[in-house]
Amino acid sequence: MINQDRLWNDHMAMAEIGATAAGGSCRIALTDDDKAGRDLFVSWCEAAGLAVRVDTCGNIFARRAGSDADAPPVITGSHLDTQPLGGRFDGIYGVLAGLEVLRALDDAGIRTRHPLEVAVWTDEEGVRFGGGCMASGVFAGMYEEADFLACTDTDGATVADELKRIGYAGTVPCGDMEVRAFFEAHIEQGPILEAEGKTVGVVLAGQGKRLIEVSVTGEEGHAGTLPMELRHDAFVGAARMVVALNELAFRFDPVPVITTGHVRVKPNSRNTIPGGTLFSIDCRHPAAETLVTLETEMRRTMEEIAAEAGLGVDIDTVTSRDPVVMDPGCINAIRDGAERLGIPHQDIYSGAGHDAFSILEMTPTGMIFVPCEKGISHNEAENAKPEDLAAGAAVLAEAMVAYGEKI
Amino acid sequence: MINQDRLWNDHMAMAEIGATAAGGSCRIALTDDDKAGRDLFVSWCEAAGLAVRVDTCGNIFARRAGSDADAPPVITGSHLDTQPLGGRFDGIYGVLAGLEVLRALDDAGIRTRHPLEVAVWTDEEGVRFGGGCMASGVFAGMYEEADFLACTDTDGATVADELKRIGYAGTVPCGDMEVRAFFEAHIEQGPILEAEGKTVGVVLAGQGKRLIEVSVTGEEGHAGTLPMELRHDAFVGAARMVVALNELAFRFDPVPVITTGHVRVKPNSRNTIPGGTLFSIDCRHPAAETLVTLETEMRRTMEEIAAEAGLGVDIDTVTSRDPVVMDPGCINAIRDGAERLGIPHQDIYSGAGHDAFSILEMTPTGMIFVPCEKGISHNEAENAKPEDLAAGAAVLAEAMVAYGEKI
Repeated sequence: MINQDRLWNDHMAMAEIGATAAGGSCRIALTDDDKAGRDLFVSWCEAAGLAVRVDTCGNIFARRAGSDADAPPVITGSHLDTQPLGGRFDGIYGVLAGLEVLRALDDAGIRTRHPLEVAVWTDEEGVRFGGGCMASGVFAGMYEEADFLACTDTDGATVADELKRIGYAGTVPCGDMEVRAFFEAHIEQGPILEAEGKTVGVVLAGQGKRLIEVSVTGEEGHAGTLPMELRHDAFVGAARMVVALNELAFRFDPVPVITTGHVRVKPNSRNTIPGGTLFSIDCRHPAAETLVTLETEMRRTMEEIAAEAGLGVDIDTVTSRDPVVMDPGCINAIRDGAERLGIPHQDIYSGAGHDAFSILEMTPTGMIFVPCEKGISHNEAENAKPEDLAAGAAVLAEAMVAYGEKI
Repeated sequence: MINQDRLWNDHMAMAEIGATAAGGSCRIALTDDDKAGRDLFVSWCEAAGLAVRVDTCGNIFARRAGSDADAPPVITGSHLDTQPLGGRFDGIYGVLAGLEVLRALDDAGIRTRHPLEVAVWTDEEGVRFGGGCMASGVFAGMYEEADFLACTDTDGATVADELKRIGYAGTVPCGDMEVRAFFEAHIEQGPILEAEGKTVGVVLAGQGKRLIEVSVTGEEGHAGTLPMELRHDAFVGAARMVVALNELAFRFDPVPVITTGHVRVKPNSRNTIPGGTLFSIDCRHPAAETLVTLETEMRRTMEEIAAEAGLGVDIDTVTSRDPVVMDPGCINAIRDGAERLGIPHQDIYSGAGHDAFSILEMTPTGMIFVPCEKGISHNEAENAKPEDLAAGAAVLAEAMVAYGEKI
């Protein structure tokens, strides 16, 4: 039913907008390229006979009517904005798969009682205005609309200004509606499906997350004159902590992901013993209780190392997000769809954040993952196979029709 | 014999030139403040009846005549330039102790066959023109004078220009002379003498040094989606190396100093697994053979860790300096002087570089260390005790008179 070539060609056409040298795309939210991407999508929707509306946060909805005009819609979708050196699939796939599902249902003459819609959420990536997923968050009632519209970029331009400038400051109230269910298709952004040889991942939950900032305080000193046994080297202390946290991770099941991505050494001079070191810990796990235990253990490990080395340590949890759990009904609809179509699938957790994590606050929500090459994402080298994208869209169609009630 | 108050008051008066908010001094080489410091020193020398000359590299020599005008001088000295946020003693002490010795010998009516001189070497710190210790190096025949004079600061001003501008482009040829011996008194810039309760350190050698740049290459990835067992995290690899090198240090006797002062993580984003990490290793030891063995062991340790973690590692030794050994006769003259005066002393190694390391290339050279508070140096908080400074100057007088041949 899904037209694999049409779906693939749509991706390639969209990728031309903001195309980067190494084959990726750069369509940062509310730039001219984002506008051009939105315009292209809207033109495709109109050509497909869908009714397009834009809400006050710039979210776009393209509706395929159901037999019951008053029934709440089943919505699918994702985002068209990208990272500065982003790929052709992250977000885009969820939008284009949704469009392809609506077109394919037309082709197949399948009707539903509930309207079916494909949504483009504004500024998922959070590159330009900070935050990310805020427009879907406003839709779901998690944020105040005024707060989102007042966000500024580094040049001082607000979301409100930029929505107006690119012609996507809509008039439909954001989120003031009932939704039957929401599904988001997305590339996995990880290597698991590829490694396991599965075509579809049925997302059970989004990992919970702790973002922790650690500041280790020692004493600066001359690299040539201060004997090792008298040092309070903040970077050596930080290195010991990072090594210990990596060992700690493997004592949990499933193994959490723990990443130290940002490091700042003070004064960062080759012949001065570091007096301070700041580093980040991004830690994620699908089970809320495990995450609590893990955080406690991480703190204890770091405090022990600091005490042993005569260092100060300040541990600050700056983000604490519980795992989000997908709706059991939506999970079943996706899994059953894959089973019916004979598509190899497995349960999976989402490591990244998605607009679906906002929408699940207001309505039953499910997510479908498809493999991406080597798990690479947020990168110009992001890639996926046409047949995997089509398989994911076919499963999406099954789930949407199930919730939309075929007539 | 040494006038402790005069010596201390000279330090305090000199510190007023380029005084910084937190009690340090800023007299960067060949600035107006450096000129003012030089002028003050020259005025003191002239008041003490010393004959002042300036060489073509701006080095200042103040001579107390010996009974034999043709005998080569015994020289002492150090530098008056400082770090941008420098202290009141690093370098300054070696100059002012020398001046105090010459004045004290006058006060005591002690004459020598050899002339005695106190020298101010130009630009020891290397803050402004790079390098450091180059003027003493030209004097010792290690560098070409033209190369030093052509060094530029970030504004394009040359050493030659700036020497002229501040009135210290002398006419005496640099280094074209015989020197009986050279002694340099200096604060230790480390905590050992203070910790051991000793007043004087008899410097046996300056540590050899390796400066190594390490580049660890892994693979970037999404902090939320890439399972731990599939990662090639360059920063975790670098942290393991740093921890291992610190453990390695303690297997050598004496224990080398190993410092990772500069670290750069790529891309240094909190939610991206580091694809690369650059870090420096500053490694110093007084024995040449140990330094060779240590470098080999460090390389092997890092290569093993990289191989085990599936990381690339590139290890580049950018500076390789052998230890420098002080002259046995000068060492004995210093040690004997301390013994005669009953001053608590110990043998010590120099962790930092000094002008004496240049001069020892041309003549027998010795160094005298005195304690500084908590070993802090290159810092506005640098401090020393008047009585320790006086004790070091007294030992310096003993050594200079021994080489100068009292008559």
